[in-house]
Amino acid sequence: MDKAEKVQQLCVKRGFFWGAYEIYGGVAGFLTWGPNGVILKRRIADYWRKFFIDKHGFVEISSPDIAPYIVFEASGHVEGFKDIMVTCLKCNNKYRADTLLNEKGINVSEALGPAEMLSIIDEHKVKCPNCGGELGEPGYFITMFQTTIGPYAGSKGFLRPETAQGMFTEFKRVFEAERKKFPIGIAQVGRGYRNEISPRQGPIRLREFDMMELEMFIDPQDQRCPYFDSVKDEELNLYHRIIKEKGELEYETMSAEEAVDKKIIINEWMAYFMVMAQKFMETLGIPRNRQRFHEKLEGERAHYATQTFDQEVYLSRWGWIEVSGHAYRGDYDLLSHIKTSGRDLYVDRKLDKPKKVIQTTIIPDPKKIKDKYPRQIGRIMKFLREEDSWKEELVDKGYINITDEITLDKSFFNIKTEEKKIWVEKFIPHVVEPSFGLDRIAYTVLEYSYTEKEDRVVLSLPYIVRVFDCAVFPLVDSGEFNMIARSLYNELIDAGFRVIFEAKDSIGRRYARIDEIGVPVAFTIDGRTLEDSTVTVRDRDTWRQYRLKISDALVFLRELFRYNSFTKVVKMMKLESVD
Amino acid sequence: MDKAEKVQQLCVKRGFFWGAYEIYGGVAGFLTWGPNGVILKRRIADYWRKFFIDKHGFVEISSPDIAPYIVFEASGHVEGFKDIMVTCLKCNNKYRADTLLNEKGINVSEALGPAEMLSIIDEHKVKCPNCGGELGEPGYFITMFQTTIGPYAGSKGFLRPETAQGMFTEFKRVFEAERKKFPIGIAQVGRGYRNEISPRQGPIRLREFDMMELEMFIDPQDQRCPYFDSVKDEELNLYHRIIKEKGELEYETMSAEEAVDKKIIINEWMAYFMVMAQKFMETLGIPRNRQRFHEKLEGERAHYATQTFDQEVYLSRWGWIEVSGHAYRGDYDLLSHIKTSGRDLYVDRKLDKPKKVIQTTIIPDPKKIKDKYPRQIGRIMKFLREEDSWKEELVDKGYINITDEITLDKSFFNIKTEEKKIWVEKFIPHVVEPSFGLDRIAYTVLEYSYTEKEDRVVLSLPYIVRVFDCAVFPLVDSGEFNMIARSLYNELIDAGFRVIFEAKDSIGRRYARIDEIGVPVAFTIDGRTLEDSTVTVRDRDTWRQYRLKISDALVFLRELFRYNSFTKVVKMMKLESVD
Repeated sequence: MDKAEKVQQLCVKRGFFWGAYEIYGGVAGFLTWGPNGVILKRRIADYWRKFFIDKHGFVEISSPDIAPYIVFEASGHVEGFKDIMVTCLKCNNKYRADTLLNEKGINVSEALGPAEMLSIIDEHKVKCPNCGGELGEPGYFITMFQTTIGPYAGSKGFLRPETAQGMFTEFKRVFEAERKKFPIGIAQVGRGYRNEISPRQGPIRLREFDMMELEMFIDPQDQRCPYFDSVKDEELNLYHRIIKEKGELEYETMSAEEAVDKKIIINEWMAYFMVMAQKFMETLGIPRNRQRFHEKLEGERAHYATQTFDQEVYLSRWGWIEVSGHAYRGDYDLLSHIKTSGRDLYVDRKLDKPKKVIQTTIIPDPKKIKDKYPRQIGRIMKFLREEDSWKEELVDKGYINITDEITLDKSFFNIKTEEKKIWVEKFIPHVVEPSFGLDRIAYTVLEYSYTEKEDRVVLSLPYIVRVFDCAVFPLVDSGEFNMIARSLYNELIDAGFRVIFEAKDSIGRRYARIDEIGVPVAFTIDGRTLEDSTVTVRDRDTWRQYRLKISDALVFLRELFRYNSFTKVVKMMKLESVD
Repeated sequence: MDKAEKVQQLCVKRGFFWGAYEIYGGVAGFLTWGPNGVILKRRIADYWRKFFIDKHGFVEISSPDIAPYIVFEASGHVEGFKDIMVTCLKCNNKYRADTLLNEKGINVSEALGPAEMLSIIDEHKVKCPNCGGELGEPGYFITMFQTTIGPYAGSKGFLRPETAQGMFTEFKRVFEAERKKFPIGIAQVGRGYRNEISPRQGPIRLREFDMMELEMFIDPQDQRCPYFDSVKDEELNLYHRIIKEKGELEYETMSAEEAVDKKIIINEWMAYFMVMAQKFMETLGIPRNRQRFHEKLEGERAHYATQTFDQEVYLSRWGWIEVSGHAYRGDYDLLSHIKTSGRDLYVDRKLDKPKKVIQTTIIPDPKKIKDKYPRQIGRIMKFLREEDSWKEELVDKGYINITDEITLDKSFFNIKTEEKKIWVEKFIPHVVEPSFGLDRIAYTVLEYSYTEKEDRVVLSLPYIVRVFDCAVFPLVDSGEFNMIARSLYNELIDAGFRVIFEAKDSIGRRYARIDEIGVPVAFTIDGRTLEDSTVTVRDRDTWRQYRLKISDALVFLRELFRYNSFTKVVKMMKLESVD
C-alpha cells in the first residue's frame, strides 16, 4: 500500500474526508469532508485570512456560485475554459485527450489543439483503454457546469470555475463601499466547480472544491509593493520559463529581489505573494525543498494571464501538484467587463501635476433631432442621456445607430474641442492574483503530517491547524477519576478550547486514537492526581509524558499554542518528566 | 421611503450586501455580500455553531453542492420539490401561480394543484400583470437547478435545495467515524439553491443562499431529549394547527412542556430546538414578541415532514417571514435511501433483555443452480453473495428474478427458520431537523439593528455579531496624535481585535461612519491624551463618552465583550463621564 492510500484510509476511518455518494456507487470528483476534515479546512482558511487578508487590511466578499452566461462569456471562459475530449467510437467512453496520451507514455502539452491531438493519436495508433476500440475525432468540451436560471430556456448560466469573476463584476461596489481606498485587495473564500471530463486522482482532481482567492488591484503605473522590502531576500525555488525552455528539469533558487530584477517575476506584488505562499505552506508543514514555483508557458497558461507561476508541492503518488496559482491578469478582466457591460469600472488617478488634454464635448441638438424624428424624440434623448458609449462611436464612425431605423450623424450634435488641464485621470487597475486550492492544501497537509511510529499512525498536524486542542482522560473509568477529569474538561471548554473526553478503553488505545487525528496533548488523571493534584501531560509527537499541576493545565495550553513548541513550554514551566 | 428600503440603501453604501451582477442589469434572487456582510454572516454562523453544535458535542460535515440525479429522486425532491407555474400566452412571461394570485388579493394555499389554480384563475378572470394577456394552463416546474455531471448527457445532476441530503447519504460514514455515538447530531453550514420562478422580495427570496442545518438522529423508541429539562418552562409563541384550523390569526403562548404534553409539538427534541432557536434570535436582537412558530398544515409542509413549525420573525415590509424551519422528518429520508441504494443505513439498538425472534436463514444450493444455469453460475453466485435485497423478495414472492432470463424459486435454496435470542436489533433513526436560513437571518439582524437618531443612522448590531470591535481615532490628523493612535491600534490588532483606524475627516463624520456599520466603541486620542495618557471612549448607542487610561483600553474591550454591556463595564471600571 503506498502512502497516498494509507493517508486516504486514515482519512475515511477518522472522518477527514471520503468519496461522496458512496451509497450510490460514488461520483468521481466529489468529496465529503467529515467532522475532522471540516475543522481542518476551516483552520487552514482562517489562517489564510490572517496571513493574506487581515494583515494587509484587505477585504473579503462573497458573491454567488451561479453566474449568468454573459459573465463567463465576457470573461473569455466560454471561449477559453475547455479541454480536448476524445470519444471511443465503439464503447462511447470519453477521455480527456492529453491525459489519455500522457498515460500511454506519450508526452503532450496542454497547449495542443484538437487537430494536433488527432495526428498524435493516429501516429501512435492509440486505442480506447477500455475496449480497444477506435477513437473518434477530438473536440472541445467546456469544463464549466451549465444550468438554467429560472424557467426561461434562454437564461443559461454557469457554476463559477473560479471565484475571481465575482471580484471583477462586483469591483465597483466594493471599491465604493471601501471609500475608494487604493490599491485594494479583494478576496473570496468559496466554492469553485469544474466539470472535468473523467477525473481520477482521488482528492487531487475535484469537480467541486473550495478556493481562497485574492485579487490585488494595483495601478499599472506603480507596480511597487510596500511590503516587498521585508521579504526581498527570501529565496524562491523557481522552475521558470528560461530553464524550462532549456529543457532542464531542476528548479533554480534565487532571492525574490533577484527574480524581480532579472524580470523572471513580472513585478514586486507577484514576488511578494509568492514568498508569502511559500511561508504559508511551510508553516503548514511542507518543507521548502518540497515546494517550487512552476512557470506556465504561453498556451499552458489560462487565457487571462500574462504570467503565471503555479506553486507546486511534491506528493508521494502524484509528484509535483499545484496548490496555488500566481497570475498576473493585468487589465484583462476589468477591461472585458467594461467592454461587454458598457459600465465604468475605472479608478481615478490623482496627478502630481496637471496634464493637458484635448477634451471633446458632445451635446445633442434636440431641435434638429426632433425635426427628423418627431415621434421617437423621447426615446432618443433618454438613450443619449443614459448611455455613454455612443460618444466614442460618433467620433469614430461619424454617425451612430440608435436602432435599426434611427441614425444620427454629427450634424445633430454640437461638438466642441478644447484643451483642458486635468488633475485626475481614469485608469483600469491591473490585477495580481494569488489563488489557493483549499482541498488540495488540506490533503497535502494530511499527507505531510502522516507518520508511522512503532507500527502506529501519528498525524503530526502543525498546531496551527489542529482539529482538537487536547484530550482529557481519566486513567480508569471510575467515579473519582471521572469527576476530576470532567471538571478539568469543563474548565478547558469554558475557556474556548476544543477538547476530547474519553473514559472508555485502555489508555493506550485512547492515546493511539487521538494520535491518529493529531491531537497535540493529552492530560491524564491517574492515581497520583488524587494525592498531589497533578496530571500527566503527553506529547503527541514524542510520546513523552510530564507531570503538571492540574491548575496549570489551562496556562499550559495557552502557552503551547502561543509558542507552538511542546519542548519550549515544558522547559519554561519546568515540568518534571515521567519515565 | 419605507424601512426596508432604507436598510437596503445602507447595506449597499456600507458594503453589507447588494444585488449581484448589477453591471449586467442584475439577476433576480442573487446577492453579493460585501466586506461587512461577510463578517456579519460569519459571526452569525460561528455563533450558531457554538449554540447548536459545540455545546452538544454534535459534528459538522461538508458535502458537495452538486448531487447526482438519483439522490434527489430517492429523496422525493424530483417528485415533490416543485411550484406551479403559469405562462402568459401573449408575452410569454412566467409566474408562480400562488404568488400571482396572492398579489391579486386572492388568498390561495400552497397546497393547491394545477387544476385548482386554473379554475381560480378562470373564476377571477386573472390576466397577465405584464401585458394583460390570457394565461395558459398552470403546470409544475421543478425548482431545483439542473446540470450535467461530466460529458455524458445521461449524467444529470442537481444543485442541492437543502444541505440535509448530505447528512443522509453520508450518514453511515459519519456515524462510523464518530465511533457509533448515538444519538448523533450532524450539521452542515453551506450553500443551498432553489430555482425560483420569478423571485422578487430582494434579500428575502433568494435562488442561492447559505443554510445552517442540523439533522438530529434519534431512536424512535426513545424520543426524550436530555436537555429538555433545562428549557421546559420557556414560553413559545405557537401559531399551531389547532388555532389555525379555527381560523384565528393570533399565536398562542405556552411553555415548551405544555406544548409537548398537549402533543402540539411532536416530541421533546423538536420543542428543545424551538426554544433554542427563539433564544438564538433573541440574542441577535429580535424580541420574543416579534417571533412566532407557525405550524404548517398537511400540503403546506415539505413532502418529507410529519410535523413542521416555521420560526417566523416580523419584518417591516414583508410581514411574518420564516427564518428557520423545524421539521420532524421521521425515518423518511434514511428509509428512502435504503430502498433506493440497497445499502444498510441502520443503527444497532442494544436491548436491555434479549428478545426472541424468528430468524430465517437462506442458503443458495450452488449445485441445483448450476444444473439449471451452468453458464451463468458465476454471475448468479456473485449476485447472491453481494446483494442482500433478494432474500426478502424470495420470501415474499416465492421466487426472484436475477435477470430477465434467470429466475430462481425457493427450491434452489435451503431455507431454515429458527427461534433465536437477540441482544441487538437494527432500526432506522428518526430525524428532527432545525434548519436556518443564514441570509435571511443576517437581513433580519440588520433591519432590527437599524435605528435613526437625530437624522443619523445608528446600526445597533448586537455585540456578538459586530463587524468591527472598535475604532481608534486621532482627534486631528497630526504627528503626535497619530503616533499614539497607531500604537494603540497596533496593540489592539496584536491582541486579535478587528480595529478601524482613521485620521482623516472631522471627528463627527468619523463617528457617524462607524455608527452606520455598528462599531460598538471608539477610542479617541485628543489634547488631554498628551497630558494624562487618557483617551475618550465613546458608546455607539448613547453617544456618551468617558475617559479611560490608554493602558486600560485592551482590558476595557475584553470586559465589554465578556459582559456585553457598555454601562456595566463603565461602572465596573469607574470611568469618568465627559460632559
